[in-house]
Amino acid sequence: MPAIITFLSDFGTVDGYVGEVKGVLSSDAPGANIVDITHDIPPHDVDAGRLTVMRYWRRYPPGTVHLAVVDPDVGMDRAAIAIASDGQFLVGPDNGLLSHALMLPGAQVGRLAIPPGASPTFHARDVFAPAAARLARGIPLTSLGVSGHDPVVMLTPEPEADVTGAVIGQIIAIDHFGNAITNLMAQRATRVHIGGRTLKLVRTYGHLDPGEAGALIGSSGYVEVVVGQGSAAKVLGLAKGTAVRLS
Amino acid sequence: MPAIITFLSDFGTVDGYVGEVKGVLSSDAPGANIVDITHDIPPHDVDAGRLTVMRYWRRYPPGTVHLAVVDPDVGMDRAAIAIASDGQFLVGPDNGLLSHALMLPGAQVGRLAIPPGASPTFHARDVFAPAAARLARGIPLTSLGVSGHDPVVMLTPEPEADVTGAVIGQIIAIDHFGNAITNLMAQRATRVHIGGRTLKLVRTYGHLDPGEAGALIGSSGYVEVVVGQGSAAKVLGLAKGTAVRLS
Amino acid sequence: MPAIITFLSDFGTVDGYVGEVKGVLSSDAPGANIVDITHDIPPHDVDAGRLTVMRYWRRYPPGTVHLAVVDPDVGMDRAAIAIASDGQFLVGPDNGLLSHALMLPGAQVGRLAIPPGASPTFHARDVFAPAAARLARGIPLTSLGVSGHDPVVMLTPEPEADVTGAVIGQIIAIDHFGNAITNLMAQRATRVHIGGRTLKLVRTYGHLDPGEAGALIGSSGYVEVVVGQGSAAKVLGLAKGTAVRLS
Repeated sequence: MPAIITFLSDFGTVDGYVGEVKGVLSSDAPGANIVDITHDIPPHDVDAGRLTVMRYWRRYPPGTVHLAVVDPDVGMDRAAIAIASDGQFLVGPDNGLLSHALMLPGAQVGRLAIPPGASPTFHARDVFAPAAARLARGIPLTSLGVSGHDPVVMLTPEPEADVTGAVIGQIIAIDHFGNAITNLMAQRATRVHIGGRTLKLVRTYGHLDPGEAGALIGSSGYVEVVVGQGSAAKVLGLAKGTAVRLS
Repeated sequence: MPAIITFLSDFGTVDGYVGEVKGVLSSDAPGANIVDITHDIPPHDVDAGRLTVMRYWRRYPPGTVHLAVVDPDVGMDRAAIAIASDGQFLVGPDNGLLSHALMLPGAQVGRLAIPPGASPTFHARDVFAPAAARLARGIPLTSLGVSGHDPVVMLTPEPEADVTGAVIGQIIAIDHFGNAITNLMAQRATRVHIGGRTLKLVRTYGHLDPGEAGALIGSSGYVEVVVGQGSAAKVLGLAKGTAVRLS
Repeated sequence: MPAIITFLSDFGTVDGYVGEVKGVLSSDAPGANIVDITHDIPPHDVDAGRLTVMRYWRRYPPGTVHLAVVDPDVGMDRAAIAIASDGQFLVGPDNGLLSHALMLPGAQVGRLAIPPGASPTFHARDVFAPAAARLARGIPLTSLGVSGHDPVVMLTPEPEADVTGAVIGQIIAIDHFGNAITNLMAQRATRVHIGGRTLKLVRTYGHLDPGEAGALIGSSGYVEVVVGQGSAAKVLGLAKGTAVRLS
């Protein structure tokens, strides 16, 4: 079975950067299947990348290598890492992007060496892709990176309780459709308040009239604020960080 | 030869949704080649998706599985279907998106069961991708879905004749370049009128001066309204539904 | 090992055009791995396509076929060509897009016949993809195209020296992050001037404060004008053609 290498970045698709990285993967891991996740993570938004990686990485078969690069500090002293976690591999900058895999029991991490000729502005091509290709070829993590590294972990903010016992969460992401995803887990959802209003709780988008605001349990288990046939972000003026209250 | 699964959606590429679906395909149909068609169908625009599916599905080799999801009524009572037509398979919501394959003689359709744990907001991941993967593995349609379902069929509007014998069509899509595609077939093209003007008929784009409006027979056989080195939609103020007259 | 066919175009991803071309590749070169480079080259911008092709094509393994189509004169009298260069193959319009491969010693070029049924507006589907697939299947270039064709070559403008001995270059591309890439090679970089200002020379983006302008040697060896955590193009008002001076 051919190895699978997934690839997420904030490189956009206007340039040849994605093509260069895939060239390295194709050359260094002959026959591997390269699977695009997205290259449209907002530039430098490590946290958006982290939440996206979290959604998909464990859905792939054992042995999959996940290359993920959102790397505003490329060429600075942040480490380059490779991770083995839950039967899969992840490669990218040590800036919190790969946090979810690091938090699982048994996760192993190796710090990658930066080859002397590597461009200080393009580690995806010169550091991460070669390492991902080696893992895809079956070379063990211990041969690639130095162990004993203490990686950066970023966490999704936890909801808090207020004096009335209500749970206060926040919007952590806006998706392509304008749905606002919160940090509130499903079982807690009884009544959802945002700004001064209480939202109708529904099972899926179609239960809302066009333009009507509501809330539902999204496909990752988090409460989402949504609007029928429209963008909740636009209609309700929501953004990352907006408070959401459950009671 | 590895199985081919094509994938079209309106999910955009900012989020991890596409990555999640591909993870399910990769896990459930090991070794399959996943081919991205587009994830930029305008959100909820089933008709735009239908016209796009129509363009590509029969160009793939026999046995290809086409996963196509533009699904504003996800989780409601619209059916989930799989189709065998002309030696290929299609999987998606029963909302007209897959109409073209349904209209061919010998097309078979099966209604897919919704597994109890499926997220009501993400059938692409929990219903359609698993079914597409099973078809890619050679599991017959009859094992996947219940037959006897009467699917939704959406048709491209037919041109009409007016009292003078002229043929009245309309614009059915605007493409990436701003070319306006009509529902008028090639052989009918003699003179093309739009608003008050008569358009020059040309063989290809380059026969028009920059900014000059014209008409040609597009690559699917439909009359297209175009502008030299520019967007006909912008320059001529065209949109889906604008009337076009042949004489 | 499956053949690799890379695919670059200016088709965008709203339509089914990319899907149609991939269908032809999948049917005509069974089992090939199709690798998307980008479909977001600005419409008709042959020069932007040329600079992008230049970045990636030699990073792929020997025998890779590169399909590249930015083709404003499709269906006119520009030739359709296939190239063998440095162990790889390239297929596309003869308008300068593939210049880099043509300039290498030993490059061979064949002029492709236009099949009678080819749509005059979609040679990617009807001319280039079938030729790319044949090369991927191992059919020699000499069987595909007629030799003796003299192809169009476009060159990146060379920097010039002014009376003071300073080197005057220009911006040749703006990337996804707003970095402005010049035609000035690395070793020449001592001090970089743009408009009236002298830019700080840094090793990588992170050495600049947010909003601070600077210059660095980019990953292809060219001097880049950049801004810390921002778009140099926007902040400094740069565009293709803006003069950049080294001293």
